[in-house]
Order: sequence, then structure tokens, then C-alpha cells
Amino acid sequence: MATPSYRNAKNVGHVMIGQGAIAQLGEVLAPLRAKGGPAVWFFDHFFAHNDLPKRVPVVEGDVVIFVDTSEEPTTDGIDAYTDQVRKELAGAMPCALLAFGGGATMDTCKCVGNLLTNPGKAEDYQGWELVKNPAPYKIGCPTLSGTGSESSRTGVLCNEAKNLKLGMNSDFTMFEQLVLDPDLSVTVPREQYFFTGIDTYMHCFESLSGSYRNVVVDALAEKALDLSRHVFLSGDMMAEENREKLMIASYLGGLAAGFVGVVHPLSAGLSMVLHMHHGIANCYALSVLEDIYPVQYREVMDMMQKQGVSLKKGICANLTDEQYQQLYDASIVHEKPLTNALGPDYRKVLTPENVIARFKRM
Amino acid sequence: MATPSYRNAKNVGHVMIGQGAIAQLGEVLAPLRAKGGPAVWFFDHFFAHNDLPKRVPVVEGDVVIFVDTSEEPTTDGIDAYTDQVRKELAGAMPCALLAFGGGATMDTCKCVGNLLTNPGKAEDYQGWELVKNPAPYKIGCPTLSGTGSESSRTGVLCNEAKNLKLGMNSDFTMFEQLVLDPDLSVTVPREQYFFTGIDTYMHCFESLSGSYRNVVVDALAEKALDLSRHVFLSGDMMAEENREKLMIASYLGGLAAGFVGVVHPLSAGLSMVLHMHHGIANCYALSVLEDIYPVQYREVMDMMQKQGVSLKKGICANLTDEQYQQLYDASIVHEKPLTNALGPDYRKVLTPENVIARFKRM
Repeated sequence: MATPSYRNAKNVGHVMIGQGAIAQLGEVLAPLRAKGGPAVWFFDHFFAHNDLPKRVPVVEGDVVIFVDTSEEPTTDGIDAYTDQVRKELAGAMPCALLAFGGGATMDTCKCVGNLLTNPGKAEDYQGWELVKNPAPYKIGCPTLSGTGSESSRTGVLCNEAKNLKLGMNSDFTMFEQLVLDPDLSVTVPREQYFFTGIDTYMHCFESLSGSYRNVVVDALAEKALDLSRHVFLSGDMMAEENREKLMIASYLGGLAAGFVGVVHPLSAGLSMVLHMHHGIANCYALSVLEDIYPVQYREVMDMMQKQGVSLKKGICANLTDEQYQQLYDASIVHEKPLTNALGPDYRKVLTPENVIARFKRM
Repeated sequence: MATPSYRNAKNVGHVMIGQGAIAQLGEVLAPLRAKGGPAVWFFDHFFAHNDLPKRVPVVEGDVVIFVDTSEEPTTDGIDAYTDQVRKELAGAMPCALLAFGGGATMDTCKCVGNLLTNPGKAEDYQGWELVKNPAPYKIGCPTLSGTGSESSRTGVLCNEAKNLKLGMNSDFTMFEQLVLDPDLSVTVPREQYFFTGIDTYMHCFESLSGSYRNVVVDALAEKALDLSRHVFLSGDMMAEENREKLMIASYLGGLAAGFVGVVHPLSAGLSMVLHMHHGIANCYALSVLEDIYPVQYREVMDMMQKQGVSLKKGICANLTDEQYQQLYDASIVHEKPLTNALGPDYRKVLTPENVIARFKRM
């Protein structure tokens, strides 16, 4: 028997954790500044009207970008941000890129980073191991927990022309440093906190239900699931202690990022066709997968009730046949997770009729 | 209130996990070899009569050291290994250091690494943040699970002249790469497997019982404890699946390394005065701490019974008064863990009479 080829998993280099930790950002930046070059700051556009950008050590000559996160990041959007950053840098190589936001902002920072040191366009790097040159040093400061983008090796982008949601999967996509400060998530609206936060639960249970596994990934995913359950089944999911727990769950869940299952492909379809955010799209997907994931379906419905959040019905009720076909196509294309969940014959279960009927029930 | 100063925790850079993963070591080494310089290989002396050194990609010009692990590493021992390595390197800087063994071999590799790039002797670096220059790239391949040395930032040394067991605590002490191959632990004798393996349980429960905590450390420590319990309360602790679980537990436990409690200081006393190995010394320590840790005392006694291992009684029965005093001194000096477990007034509980009576009961 040939020895299997194991992946050499990269970890996030440094992690600083604690309430108010963001105050130590200057200290973290100092050795990078010493090497020269401006810093590039990516803030979720929400922070344009918030004091956060004034509380962090931005200096003259730095580049500040407010990322429009009303929709999921797109390949075209990344190309535009890259052009903007390049222009403002005027030939300088940045000492660091920093991201303050949720998955959309962090993925934008991660993908722009890759394009600053690699030629071509964002879509050239959608896939696995396509990035050739190391990106500038990146620091992630999540302000919204759940996606695991802070610790994962992907930056997920919607490619409109190809009707494809796919990440830049590469060790170079990862952050080198994280600052996990639960104070940063205090201003998140409740529904957004829930729908983004539950993403950790989703990708961890999908990884644990699949056939591609390893003991470390399982251990991290189980712990992330425990923490998520604790947060969403407790009285106030946004209590300070719970915001810290969810931040850690998201971080561990991102490190555990293995293969997902049926939720994520259907969710990708919704993001592509209806421009829906990943977290809420996951919840819609699970809401019509009660036959495949009965236990998790019940648990997430309980969590939603407990936290007083709900899904509006009928979101896919009146689409055109072409749109239903697009939903199907943008879902079924995700071979790896679907095989992980249902085996190689997944198309026998997930026929176009079966999948489209599920979308119509949402 | 001033913002507290949080530690910026470093992670091990890369981790490869799986049965037979050691076969990919050549692949891992290739980019390091490309930069030039020989590799330095540290093997536990057990492997001098085993085929492992022939199964790994040692090439001409590399330095191979067999580490005598009959006793815990000492500052004098590290100085001697450093001289030997320096002499064999004849002025070259190594492309990598590699360690195959348990905590003693890995700590030897870690400490010699620091001394290859920092002047002076091993004892100059016992403490916190004393190492100034980065060590050469280090690859850890544990063959014995439990100590967490593979993922911790310390290399623990006995300083005979100072009657002090203390580590070189530094980010530079850490491995950059780990290869966790459960096949490597198949030849470990059962008693050694148990006494070393249980170290993870010990430092994780002590960290979780203490007052210095954070949510990530807790999460990792809890998971490591779960895995340890599973391994030692199951039928055959050395079944292949259990060897993999224990290897992961040890890795997570090392990452979680926080502050320990009363077990480790008493254990340090035994290592200093009786030259006892850390793992079994921990078990002796817990065996006389049933009043402080009743639950863990019971659980470990159950595990020992289940796995058919036992502690010989009377190991400290006939020592001199001077030796009892040395045992006390080498234990009580560990202020941080003792404060963590019992608060600042720990000396009121752990008087010389109290502690010496405990040693006499072992």
C-alpha cells in the first residue's frame, strides 16, 4: 500500500486574545513598521460612522479602505479594491494589511493581499494552491464571529460571470496574526450576530458528519460546536462571556475547516443567485435539509427560537425557471463537500427536481 | 482601569498528522535543504538500536546525536550537547534541527537550538523571555506522547547546582514544524506510555483548576482532557486509534500550556532530588494530593488500575533530613503554579512539615 499524502496544515502564527486587546495593536505593529512601508487598513463600511478607526494606530501615509459588505465579496470587487490599494500605495510595498470586520471584510483583505504580490486577476486564483508568491503580512481583527475566516486558508469570492462561489485556497491566504477582542462585537445587530455566528456550528457539524476526517480537525470542530451550542442555547447569546466564547469558537472552527456537506453548496447557490449573505443562506439551506440532518435541523430551529430570530418564508417562491436552474447549478457544482456528505453518487439523491423543490420550500 | 497586557501567543507553524506521515519528511525538509547547511538530528538513545534513523532522510554531512534520556535533561547536559553539535558543524549553520523522542529529546533539541544562536550557557536562559536571537528551524517528531513539548514554548532543564528545575520559556524555543505520526509510538513500553501520556491529563486539569485562565486555553485543555480520559479509560490504551488520540491530546495540551498547580512543583522536587522522570513523578505527586485534587486523584487511580500500571511504594521512605529539605525547597520555589492553585498564601497550607509528610507517604 502506498503511503497516503498528508496535508501539512499551517497555523495562524500569533494570536492575542482578550477584552480590550485591540489597545495593544500598536505594540504588535511596531516591529512591522520598523521594516518600512505603510499599513493598509480594511474596515467594514459600518465602521465609517464609528470611532473604531480613530482608536487604532493609523498613521499618515497609511491606506484606509472601507469595504462595502452589503453583499458577499466578488472577484470583480476584489480586482477593484486591489487597483485602489495599488494606486494609493504608489509603488510602496505595505508593512502590513489589517482587517476589521466579519468574513466579507477579512476575505477582502486576504484576497487583495494575494493580488498585491501575484499578477493577474482575482478569478485566476479561485481554486487550490494557485497563489505562488507570499502576500504581505496580514493581521485579522474580527468584529463579527462565525465564519472562521480569521483562521482559515481561504478567501471566498463570488464569480458572477462563472456563476461560481469559490475560494482562493492557499497557505498564503492566511493571516499571520490575530487579535481577538470580544469588545469589537458588541455593536453587531442581533440577527446578524446569530446568522453569522451559527456558521461555525454549520461548518463544524458538516465536517464531523463527513467521511474525510482527522483527529485534530475533529477535536477542534467538536470544541467549536460545544462552544456554539453553549452560546446559542443560553439566555443571552450576546452577553460579554458569550461574545468571547463565540469568538473562540469561530477561531477554532476556522482552524478545523475541513470538508463541509450539503448545507454549504445550497448556501452557495443562494449567495450566487440571490446575493444572500453566507450565514443566513446556511440557515435557509439547513431549513430544507431536515431529512439529511434531522438532529442539527432540530437544534438550530431551537436556537433560533431561543434567541428570537427567524427566517422569512418564500424567498425562492417566485423565481424564473432559469433562476431555479442557476440555483441548482451553483449548488451541485460543489463536488467535494457533496461527496463528503453523501458519497460519490450524490447526484442520485440531489436530482434537479429534488434540489429545486427544496429551494421552493424556503 | 488600565488595559491588561495580553500575551501574544505563538502557534506551531505547520503540523502534519497521520499514520505513516514520517515518510513525507523528505518533502518537508527539501525547501530547507535548498537554503544550504546540514541538518542536525536528535534521536532518543533508544533509537540507536532501531531502524528509525535509517528510515528518515539523513544525508552525508548531517549531524546525528543520540540523546541519553535515562534522566531528565540538565543544564550541564545541554551545554555538552551544544559543544558537540558546534564542533561537528564546524562553523556551518544548520538548515534544520530535528527531534525524535519524548519530552527529554525534544527539550534537548529545543534548548540546543537556542544556544546555537545565543551566547553563553543553558542556565543563562532558564526563565522567561531571556532568549534574544531566533534559533535555527526546528522540526519535532514525537515518538512518545504526553509532555506537550512538541507544541509548548519551553524546554525544561534541571539545574543541579541551583537545585532548580526550570524551562527556557521563549517563542524561540518552539518548533516551527511538527510531524505527528502515531506509528512512531508503537514501540513504547506500556508503563512509560502511561506515565508520559498522563502528563497531558495532569497539566490540563491543573490549568483548568487554576485562577489564571482564558477561553482558548480552556477550550484546548478541555479537549485534551477528554481525549486523555478516552484513551486511559478504554480497554487498550495502546490501540492504534488510541495512540493517535493521545498524540493529538499531547499536541493540544502543549498549545494550552497555561499555569499548572500543586502536582508539577512536587513532581519537580522528585525530578531534582531523585532524578525521577517527569511523568511518573507527576503520578507520585498526585498520589499524595487526594485532599487538594480528590476527583482527579480518584480518576488517575482508576486509569492506572484499568491499564495495569502501578506505583512502587516507599520511594521517599528512607532519605536524609537534608534530602527531605531539598525536596521541599525544589517544590516550594514554584511560586506561579502554587499561587495559581492555592492563592498567594500557599505557604500556609504547604508548610515544610506538610510537604515532607506527603513525600514520606509516597
